[in-house]
Amino acid sequence: MEVVQVLHMKNGDGETSYARNSTVQKKTISFAKPIIEKAVLEILGSTIMGIESMGIADLGCSSGPNTFLLVSHIMDVIHAKFSTVTELRVFLNDLFSNDFNSIFMSLPAFYDKLNKQDYNNGRDPEQHVINPLISAVPGSFYGPLFPRKSMHFVHSSFSLHWLSQVPDGLNNKGKIYMSKSSPQCVLDAYSMQFQKGFAVFLRSRAQEIVDGGRMVLSFMGRPSSDPTADQGTFYQYELLAQALMAMVSKGLIKEEKVDSFNLPHYAPCAEELNLVLQKEGSFIKEHLEAFEVDWDIGGADLDHNMPNGTFDDDQTITSNGQQMANSIRAVVESMLESHFGKEIMDDVFQKYAELVSRHLTNSTTTPKYTVWVISLVKKN
Amino acid sequence: MEVVQVLHMKNGDGETSYARNSTVQKKTISFAKPIIEKAVLEILGSTIMGIESMGIADLGCSSGPNTFLLVSHIMDVIHAKFSTVTELRVFLNDLFSNDFNSIFMSLPAFYDKLNKQDYNNGRDPEQHVINPLISAVPGSFYGPLFPRKSMHFVHSSFSLHWLSQVPDGLNNKGKIYMSKSSPQCVLDAYSMQFQKGFAVFLRSRAQEIVDGGRMVLSFMGRPSSDPTADQGTFYQYELLAQALMAMVSKGLIKEEKVDSFNLPHYAPCAEELNLVLQKEGSFIKEHLEAFEVDWDIGGADLDHNMPNGTFDDDQTITSNGQQMANSIRAVVESMLESHFGKEIMDDVFQKYAELVSRHLTNSTTTPKYTVWVISLVKKN
Repeated sequence: MEVVQVLHMKNGDGETSYARNSTVQKKTISFAKPIIEKAVLEILGSTIMGIESMGIADLGCSSGPNTFLLVSHIMDVIHAKFSTVTELRVFLNDLFSNDFNSIFMSLPAFYDKLNKQDYNNGRDPEQHVINPLISAVPGSFYGPLFPRKSMHFVHSSFSLHWLSQVPDGLNNKGKIYMSKSSPQCVLDAYSMQFQKGFAVFLRSRAQEIVDGGRMVLSFMGRPSSDPTADQGTFYQYELLAQALMAMVSKGLIKEEKVDSFNLPHYAPCAEELNLVLQKEGSFIKEHLEAFEVDWDIGGADLDHNMPNGTFDDDQTITSNGQQMANSIRAVVESMLESHFGKEIMDDVFQKYAELVSRHLTNSTTTPKYTVWVISLVKKN
Repeated sequence: MEVVQVLHMKNGDGETSYARNSTVQKKTISFAKPIIEKAVLEILGSTIMGIESMGIADLGCSSGPNTFLLVSHIMDVIHAKFSTVTELRVFLNDLFSNDFNSIFMSLPAFYDKLNKQDYNNGRDPEQHVINPLISAVPGSFYGPLFPRKSMHFVHSSFSLHWLSQVPDGLNNKGKIYMSKSSPQCVLDAYSMQFQKGFAVFLRSRAQEIVDGGRMVLSFMGRPSSDPTADQGTFYQYELLAQALMAMVSKGLIKEEKVDSFNLPHYAPCAEELNLVLQKEGSFIKEHLEAFEVDWDIGGADLDHNMPNGTFDDDQTITSNGQQMANSIRAVVESMLESHFGKEIMDDVFQKYAELVSRHLTNSTTTPKYTVWVISLVKKN
């Protein structure tokens, strides 16, 4: 399955939309924030460069409240630093099917907000940064996107765990993803697909980033080299497979349908990342760090729906199960829908919310996602 | 009224959408084609430049079948010329509310089409142009859009007759536009608003286009300096005002509502264009030419709806009245809708189609639009 055309976050701002269910992504951005800041400061401080026109890109920008966080943050750093930058070129990338119209409709308000900030306070008025020049570049980041040597800083949050395609030759051996019972060849196929894609990603960006330019990438990962030992990322899809199998038991879906569906998702371990970085060779690894995010992280919607947070423990858990089911739904529904049909989606995700809630209740420690944050420097 | 936020072509591909009612625009592109070709050849032939990475922009690109015509055309010229260009940066611009999602969804098919063309036939394989790097830059072209000195060729078709705003101080003196009975101050206010905007447009582009870079601009104009003498562009809105006044007679709209609505549209004469070009001073005028396009130009929809073109004269005229009403509706409906309300639109445009049909029947010669095509060179 070539997924670059079908994978997209749920558009709009309804209850199950990506815009309202991207709390983990926001958390990741706040983890990555100091690392992004350091990278940008290093770029600005590099006297050899003396950048006037700075190019930055956000790969897999999606659309929602997080889209402009990176731009705001980098604007803050540039202004705080009294840098030589007078032109900020911003490139927002996501797949062809991303809701760029929503992003563009919210741009005037974003520009207004920037204009109200007192960025010019104490700066040489000749040097003030005018509005950033924001453009959208649709397409897969597993290939060329930008002009040669045009970028100083490239960022990608919560996207690189999506493969460009489901690995070839799985032959219906999985239940939507790897499982503990998957034969070794399935695990290997997923790992190789990730490594191949990540190498293409690095090679493509190496053409586009100036020497000494930087990338900060964050994405789902796993703490151990055994993919099935991971109780975070891996297990969330294990439960989704169980929800689908419950539909099979009810006779609502055929089992073959579940067998023939595979998620183009992979959560790599440190060894795999290091191997690809070393083999591809265009970037120096400056920083590699794993963060953990609780499964049942509260979201804006939770705050919104519940009065003053005064609910008992059981309710909290149920709500968090629902919250997490919504988060996953926002991301994977379009893929599931095109395979299993729209009409079954509510049932699947209701069952999924139940399974997640039960798992949260039964777990002695809260299950966690592992998120990698890598900071890379383009070699001269 | 600040229109840059509300003016947009009708999205989608329904019967009254812009995508299906942009025949005049397509005709204009074919008029401009040899002029565009000449400009691009001059850029490529300029040995001083030796362009490897070429930047082109289409301002007011809209979304529909015409969007990629320019890119295709320029790709053809680049390949036919065996040029040094190995990277084509394409920037599609329109207002924030434009339907960029539709453009992006049709990009994979466009890339496929390009890949099937035998562009590399006879060329040095090292020099072949890969897929153009297509990006979208939303915002008003009456201000900065692109990085400094990043563009070699800028094109705009059928957009510059839209003002950035309705002139200030009209004080409800018009009926949606100028009329024969408009006081001189209304005519002057429109002319000054156009001149001011066109100067800002030229100054903004002068920052962004490399020395020796070129622009080809086409837009509605008028053949004589008296704006009310024009039986083409001007009269189409005179009839639209009559259609609205017919709604007033029926008690469906209040007359004050019509008085307080003004279209941010202006069709300049050659004297006005020359004056602004001379005063602003960044560009050399290489070519200025007026084309005429018949009002009742047949469209794809007409061909589609009518069997083999075998209908009597009267039917043709009625259909062409409808066709023209659809064309105008695709462009101005969003503005009218936000002022007069959605529910009245069908009635307004049905009346308008009647008035246009009657005017076509009663005219001894077919009324024509005047379209300017200007070719400009950025001074060193």
